[in-house]
Amino acid sequence: MKIAIIGAGSPYTPELVLKLSGVQERLPVSEISLMDIDENRLGIMHGFCERYAAGLGYEVDFTYTRDLQRAVEQADFVVTQLRVGGNKARANDEKIPLSRGYIGQETTGPGGFMKALRTVPVVCGIAEVMEEASPHAWLINYTNPTGIVAEGLYKTSKIKHACLCSGGLFPAWNTSNALNVPPESVRFDYAGLNHLNFAYNISVNGRRITKEELAKVLALSGSVDTGLLSSIGAFASPYLQYYFRRAEMLKKQLDAPRTRAEDVMALEAEIYDAYGDPGNNKIPEALHKRGGGGYSEVAIGVMDAAYNNIDKLMVVNVENMGTLPFLPDDAVIETNCVVNASGVKPIATPPPPKSVWGLISAVKNYEQLTAEAALTGSKELALQALVAHPLVGDYDGAKGLLDEMLEANSAYLSGFGL
Amino acid sequence: MKIAIIGAGSPYTPELVLKLSGVQERLPVSEISLMDIDENRLGIMHGFCERYAAGLGYEVDFTYTRDLQRAVEQADFVVTQLRVGGNKARANDEKIPLSRGYIGQETTGPGGFMKALRTVPVVCGIAEVMEEASPHAWLINYTNPTGIVAEGLYKTSKIKHACLCSGGLFPAWNTSNALNVPPESVRFDYAGLNHLNFAYNISVNGRRITKEELAKVLALSGSVDTGLLSSIGAFASPYLQYYFRRAEMLKKQLDAPRTRAEDVMALEAEIYDAYGDPGNNKIPEALHKRGGGGYSEVAIGVMDAAYNNIDKLMVVNVENMGTLPFLPDDAVIETNCVVNASGVKPIATPPPPKSVWGLISAVKNYEQLTAEAALTGSKELALQALVAHPLVGDYDGAKGLLDEMLEANSAYLSGFGL
Amino acid sequence: MKIAIIGAGSPYTPELVLKLSGVQERLPVSEISLMDIDENRLGIMHGFCERYAAGLGYEVDFTYTRDLQRAVEQADFVVTQLRVGGNKARANDEKIPLSRGYIGQETTGPGGFMKALRTVPVVCGIAEVMEEASPHAWLINYTNPTGIVAEGLYKTSKIKHACLCSGGLFPAWNTSNALNVPPESVRFDYAGLNHLNFAYNISVNGRRITKEELAKVLALSGSVDTGLLSSIGAFASPYLQYYFRRAEMLKKQLDAPRTRAEDVMALEAEIYDAYGDPGNNKIPEALHKRGGGGYSEVAIGVMDAAYNNIDKLMVVNVENMGTLPFLPDDAVIETNCVVNASGVKPIATPPPPKSVWGLISAVKNYEQLTAEAALTGSKELALQALVAHPLVGDYDGAKGLLDEMLEANSAYLSGFGL
Amino acid sequence: MKIAIIGAGSPYTPELVLKLSGVQERLPVSEISLMDIDENRLGIMHGFCERYAAGLGYEVDFTYTRDLQRAVEQADFVVTQLRVGGNKARANDEKIPLSRGYIGQETTGPGGFMKALRTVPVVCGIAEVMEEASPHAWLINYTNPTGIVAEGLYKTSKIKHACLCSGGLFPAWNTSNALNVPPESVRFDYAGLNHLNFAYNISVNGRRITKEELAKVLALSGSVDTGLLSSIGAFASPYLQYYFRRAEMLKKQLDAPRTRAEDVMALEAEIYDAYGDPGNNKIPEALHKRGGGGYSEVAIGVMDAAYNNIDKLMVVNVENMGTLPFLPDDAVIETNCVVNASGVKPIATPPPPKSVWGLISAVKNYEQLTAEAALTGSKELALQALVAHPLVGDYDGAKGLLDEMLEANSAYLSGFGL
Repeated sequence: MKIAIIGAGSPYTPELVLKLSGVQERLPVSEISLMDIDENRLGIMHGFCERYAAGLGYEVDFTYTRDLQRAVEQADFVVTQLRVGGNKARANDEKIPLSRGYIGQETTGPGGFMKALRTVPVVCGIAEVMEEASPHAWLINYTNPTGIVAEGLYKTSKIKHACLCSGGLFPAWNTSNALNVPPESVRFDYAGLNHLNFAYNISVNGRRITKEELAKVLALSGSVDTGLLSSIGAFASPYLQYYFRRAEMLKKQLDAPRTRAEDVMALEAEIYDAYGDPGNNKIPEALHKRGGGGYSEVAIGVMDAAYNNIDKLMVVNVENMGTLPFLPDDAVIETNCVVNASGVKPIATPPPPKSVWGLISAVKNYEQLTAEAALTGSKELALQALVAHPLVGDYDGAKGLLDEMLEANSAYLSGFGL
Repeated sequence: MKIAIIGAGSPYTPELVLKLSGVQERLPVSEISLMDIDENRLGIMHGFCERYAAGLGYEVDFTYTRDLQRAVEQADFVVTQLRVGGNKARANDEKIPLSRGYIGQETTGPGGFMKALRTVPVVCGIAEVMEEASPHAWLINYTNPTGIVAEGLYKTSKIKHACLCSGGLFPAWNTSNALNVPPESVRFDYAGLNHLNFAYNISVNGRRITKEELAKVLALSGSVDTGLLSSIGAFASPYLQYYFRRAEMLKKQLDAPRTRAEDVMALEAEIYDAYGDPGNNKIPEALHKRGGGGYSEVAIGVMDAAYNNIDKLMVVNVENMGTLPFLPDDAVIETNCVVNASGVKPIATPPPPKSVWGLISAVKNYEQLTAEAALTGSKELALQALVAHPLVGDYDGAKGLLDEMLEANSAYLSGFGL
Repeated sequence: MKIAIIGAGSPYTPELVLKLSGVQERLPVSEISLMDIDENRLGIMHGFCERYAAGLGYEVDFTYTRDLQRAVEQADFVVTQLRVGGNKARANDEKIPLSRGYIGQETTGPGGFMKALRTVPVVCGIAEVMEEASPHAWLINYTNPTGIVAEGLYKTSKIKHACLCSGGLFPAWNTSNALNVPPESVRFDYAGLNHLNFAYNISVNGRRITKEELAKVLALSGSVDTGLLSSIGAFASPYLQYYFRRAEMLKKQLDAPRTRAEDVMALEAEIYDAYGDPGNNKIPEALHKRGGGGYSEVAIGVMDAAYNNIDKLMVVNVENMGTLPFLPDDAVIETNCVVNASGVKPIATPPPPKSVWGLISAVKNYEQLTAEAALTGSKELALQALVAHPLVGDYDGAKGLLDEMLEANSAYLSGFGL
Repeated sequence: MKIAIIGAGSPYTPELVLKLSGVQERLPVSEISLMDIDENRLGIMHGFCERYAAGLGYEVDFTYTRDLQRAVEQADFVVTQLRVGGNKARANDEKIPLSRGYIGQETTGPGGFMKALRTVPVVCGIAEVMEEASPHAWLINYTNPTGIVAEGLYKTSKIKHACLCSGGLFPAWNTSNALNVPPESVRFDYAGLNHLNFAYNISVNGRRITKEELAKVLALSGSVDTGLLSSIGAFASPYLQYYFRRAEMLKKQLDAPRTRAEDVMALEAEIYDAYGDPGNNKIPEALHKRGGGGYSEVAIGVMDAAYNNIDKLMVVNVENMGTLPFLPDDAVIETNCVVNASGVKPIATPPPPKSVWGLISAVKNYEQLTAEAALTGSKELALQALVAHPLVGDYDGAKGLLDEMLEANSAYLSGFGL
């Protein structure tokens, strides 16, 4: 059994190694192929992974390469965790919109749009290579914006894939914490988009939780106003704040001394120093400050379901196929799915509360236009997508913003009149 | 044949009388019942209508009353053209949002929301009276927001109704002007919502117009950027500016010395003076500056189709019934319909360009929540509706805005925690 | 203005000439091109048409040709009224099924299936020629099975077309006769398939007819049991008898001395003798015994709407586009449409009574499979289509029946393993 | 944990006891309440169950009662396996249609229709009692026609329920046997109705099986012609024979010396003698000749998923909710579902091959009409249902058949003009 990690220079690679070491009986991996285009980081992570696995007593071969084809050949699973343009590009995603009065964020708003234009063609290109080199392998993506990446994959590839986010774990974790019950006892309907999802009809061992219990769950959610969510009757992704608290979030960003990407770049220098230290075989403390973990748990869930052909209920980004009646059949949604060796399928889910249908529709429309723009390089479509985004909306604003963002990203794009 | 005009004190009543006088053979009206709750205006308009009809040589009885029941009894058509709270309330609709940084407009944005809360219960109440007093009569509404009024009527009444806007005439008029062809030679697909509609696949005598011809049509449209509409491939309602040029429109409003309502109130003083002059039987010049005419042409089209049972293709606000696949079946849309004595039915229409689906969905969602809030008096729903509006979106902003608007309108509302 | 008639040797051609002569102001036809592959009949009809028009004082040029391309060039309307294989093939359509215990009928059941296999490729071939020779012309088809022909046209052609049946006139005619009201005062919802349609919600000048009035209308319908239709609440095509009275209809056919085709062939000899008589310029009496007229009225309705670009409400076979929720979007249904120069579009129609949804679905499924079989020449699909037909159903029976019918029709088919 | 068995006098009760004894750790049952209205059989089965459990070393309390309320009180699961009218009524279901030339079968055709009229109100009545007496319990039904029973339950009850059939196990069993792979390695799409279902896209450990492998699977299926199924590309329920081999099946039934019910009645006498023997604690050999086992395995699967809140993929009869686009949303379909403590939900499934859509639609239409007739006692609806059945279709035939069947079943019905 072989796993290829694309973007293996990421500081999160060891977390995946750690989780894999814990499930060796279920997932008997013999080779982990590390692939990255950044030779320096790749070298550092390869060295560290070998020391780290040795320290864990985990016997597995680590190979490494800058050649995609070689990495994915014979693989059973190809994990994509890349970042086109690195944190420098991310800093632009955050700063350019903000300088023009729009939310500057990695996945939501114009920043996510720009990241999608850079990323969708790359991940779809990996799937294309897989169709030749490892047609039966699964592509497991947790590169963001994972929902728009999924749009691209469904439109261009026949490879089995699972576009994931750790957000699907939050409703059970939150309910567990708030009500002091095991997370496995919790079930819920879950629908929406990546980073714009809602969980409702929450039950514990088959018993629907009361309004009072829901209030406790929401109080821990750290998302938008609890009163609003109570009135809507749903648990929500914390990213909902960028829509429903747009004024406050924008103010926070404008007041912040540095963007998130700049903080991360500072941290990463420290983290890679630690990874590169030949005497070190521990994951550096600083990584926890970096945030963003948890994906490896979901990724390993998919691998387990697929490799061992067991039926698992998981939140994945999949084609709608009639699940949400107010979205096109070919729209990618994030919802409860059954995963097994034959693939990923959404389960029938009553729609989320009506008061968020419009927002979901608007963001999905933006996402579909963005995926199409990313795949075709059409500047016209890119502009329509940006105008369609609920956090932009304004044509004149979108035009100037698009021009500046395209120029700043010209190294990672083709088409778009560049 | 009897026509009841509800809100007959409106300065536009004589326009309807004029148009009716021109189609006496098709619509042999014997009585026009003028109803208004404003005794003063009602008196003025009754007097003027009699003089005006006499001047036209139009023989018809004008009755007048402040009693709704009496007005609608035995009527064949009940025309609603009322304005709950008058222009004073409209001034609030414009000023309160603007003072908080939101577009202040009579039909689009928070102003239209507030107008809907005041208006929907009143028009639905008229329909309720009709169900007893004139169950076979048609209700012809051109009170705005006519699309949200239609939502209310479909949810609460079995009366035949047509909620109209003159906007349905624009695509043919514009094409006619731009290409120098008769308006009757023009056909088009038309879909969307009231004040958020799109016309596409325009043809002249069955020949689809070219891109170059479309560009000429758009150049006359006075809506948003022609380049954007060309790229979308559709003619749009001028109200689209409030969405796609929101920054510029807001700036214009903030820079204006007075709101539209204030201008109108000044004009109306002049207009009513003229109407009230016992020696005058002409429509005053100032009315043309007032704007907003054209509805009577559409209203008479419906009356002709219904009374004479002929099949007319007209733009009406009707239940979706599967016409637009991305909206609920019970959503009211504005689209091409067949009107005849048996009622109004949408015709199958290919969906508008995909790049506006999200905006239409979001506004429709807001409209459905608003209609429900108006009918139930629920403040929770009202807040959800305002948050769902693409021009509001922000929860904190919506909360303060709602509180202020509800208080300012308390005389015209019940429920909402007032 | 030029009209091409394909299959002009048909004895019904003069009826179309007669109707055209009555609407010269609305349809100023200068040339009628008569096309047929049967030289003899073509000659007879050309001669007769000239004498007939002269007798009517109708000035129009009759040209004639066996060349399709020439016939359709520059045409505004191409009328298809052909019969592949003539009445001999029809006799087989009736006799072969009957000999095996199945209904033998020209349009319903295995006979209609066989006729579709012969006819669909021919009419689609005409449309293909039109795409080059007269791309803006309309194809007006009344060759049966017109609903399956429409399936073929929608799948293969961009030509504007209207597949017609006189059955759409029956509900108004029947209501008119039963209630003594003018047919133009009648409106109704109408949905289903060609020869399997239902009319309901019948109104007269906007007033829904009562149960008692409906009973009177049904009593004149000559379709299946009036009690059953009352209980269903709909007027039905007389062809419904082949489904709901299948035992009785089969018995009648088995008891008949000759099939319908054999009767017709005898009559036609007489009819053509009269047409061929150089001294005769009258439509022969015997034609009325032949039955089947009325189409020309509908055809001229479409020409009027298209040529003069006026909006007419007519029953046409069109793509479903969401009109009937229980059928695929690409299924052809027969329903109320708006026809004008821009094309034909269904109007939103509440579904027919639920108790006939299953039958309509089953027959539509058979029709779609048949159209696909006709266009591909696949014997596998042909067999699946025949098994799917509610009047066949049996696999073993279908197999033998198909083999015999294919062999008997081998001169008119390609593919099907022949 | 308490299980109530309604219709516990059935000879299959011990099979359920046996299976429960094998999963005591997962399902720690303390009481099994046996309920039946047949005092004699109830006594026999109670005595036997006690001896049988003792023989198995299975410690559980058997209570028994003829009082439904008492049986279901405090139950966690209520299993319905009753037979209204017993095998005598079944004999009528088989004989009356056959005497009139229609298939006589317990679940398919007029026999299943009659059984539904008797059964649906009884099972819905049990659910009604549960809503008071054990509102959190699950109703597990394997009384046939289980699909029509499910229609009744969804329309009338809020109780959690699973209407089951062992047919959902066949595709995996058959594939396992044909390809020599473990059944757990097999996955498939599965859709249709109870006793009219199709399995397709079969895979083994994620690998789609080849055409040649499918041929092997079909060769073992014992359903209709393998060539036909190959051409359709799906595995089918053996009950498909009653539709696609209707002539042959009818002939077989007409040639049989006795109906199935008569055979069963003879066998049952023998079986109950054995059960009643106080010295016997073994399931009698004759039961295996009786056929029809296997349900208990599926029932225990549901109990395990619900009681232990684990996610199981199982075939259940559930509301469509958009799964099959050609059926109404409220239609009950038989398809792959996820079962856990929160309930049963269908998973998104591509539709079955198009060539069976019509048949499925027709049978579903009949089933919905039948359920409504059963719940309302409307003879009009009952007649419409019977006419809508693809194996009846004929109005005159249906009328006589209905009259005779209603009269023969008058003891078990109310309404229907009896």
